[in-house]
Amino acid sequence: MEIDIYRNIMDQNDLIARSNMEFFEGNRVLAVNVMASPGAGKTSIILNTIERLKEYMNFYVIEGDIASRIDADLLESRGIPVVQINTGGSCHLDANMVKNVLGNFSFNGGILFIENVGNLVCPANFQLGEHIKLVILSVPEGHDKPFKYPSMFLKADAVILNKIDLISAIDFDRKRFYEGVYSVNPYAPVFEISCRTGEGIGEWMKWLKERYLERYEKL
Amino acid sequence: MEIDIYRNIMDQNDLIARSNMEFFEGNRVLAVNVMASPGAGKTSIILNTIERLKEYMNFYVIEGDIASRIDADLLESRGIPVVQINTGGSCHLDANMVKNVLGNFSFNGGILFIENVGNLVCPANFQLGEHIKLVILSVPEGHDKPFKYPSMFLKADAVILNKIDLISAIDFDRKRFYEGVYSVNPYAPVFEISCRTGEGIGEWMKWLKERYLERYEKL
Repeated sequence: MEIDIYRNIMDQNDLIARSNMEFFEGNRVLAVNVMASPGAGKTSIILNTIERLKEYMNFYVIEGDIASRIDADLLESRGIPVVQINTGGSCHLDANMVKNVLGNFSFNGGILFIENVGNLVCPANFQLGEHIKLVILSVPEGHDKPFKYPSMFLKADAVILNKIDLISAIDFDRKRFYEGVYSVNPYAPVFEISCRTGEGIGEWMKWLKERYLERYEKL
Repeated sequence: MEIDIYRNIMDQNDLIARSNMEFFEGNRVLAVNVMASPGAGKTSIILNTIERLKEYMNFYVIEGDIASRIDADLLESRGIPVVQINTGGSCHLDANMVKNVLGNFSFNGGILFIENVGNLVCPANFQLGEHIKLVILSVPEGHDKPFKYPSMFLKADAVILNKIDLISAIDFDRKRFYEGVYSVNPYAPVFEISCRTGEGIGEWMKWLKERYLERYEKL
């Protein structure tokens, strides 16, 4: 019975996710589900990407947190359209939470970042209607994480290895990290980035922009 | 109905947790539930604590991971009694998982570290039968985490701020971090530690040893 209920919840979530995706596509919006542990740099990467690309396209952000609106306030102070979701205790966003806030935006093409709750496990299991699942790992978390949290990396459409500027200060085995990622996911591109130095952000942005153009400019 | 089932699961978990605790106390074992994000340094702190205290008392470790036995292999190579639990997909340990592996140890007093799945959200909700909930945050994760993940800090009996050697390389606001911790939990001691330099480990060990003596030496 528990399994049935779980299955019902997931089916229900997927239905809503599908309608979210249709809504995004009707508005020529590319939705990116940003997932990572707490403190891996989700907000920094979102902010850096937007600041460098905002001349070329519109951006929108949904901030998912258990509590607080620290990140939303930061983004808002930079003039970015942002809506905060506080999940209360829930360890992930679900499609319905996202659906409920879509009316707060005036979409007109562009990219929507949905920053999920900081958690390298549970968010992987809930479709939100996104086109891209972006998984961020930061160097201080250690090279072994793809082996320990395979489902997150398995589902990634792109992986960012953040805080690459700290790699010399930390015992991080780059080769082992790539082995871990490729063992579960040989297809996702991996971008090494430092939000502090700007290293690598250009390549990530180029890839993201291409995903947008590929989907909406060829229509 | 979903709520009832959730309540049943939690009641059932708490019953097993209570029997685990009785088992620990019958064996004069102090159980420590170690919780943190992936890569905060759970295994390093466990290892450093054991290496420095093993002359004085026995240690045992349960390693909780979704997949892999990387940490268990490391501890085993140092001669520490360790059992690995792989949760499959589950984002936390529960009391029954712990109960099922207790027969693998020959307990004779001492401290059992139960390293939970790397997750700053879900493990807080599941009693395992532990005497102490230890929450570890590492400096690179950022000073705002107690505000964003309050339930974990609310339930902590002790907090370790790890990787303190990186504090000068990172924009970490110590004052804001303590405000965050104390806003939800004014009672838990906070230990600033670096496993790399050894800074602060002495104080944490002293506190932990006192908790053991307080419980078992005064009997």
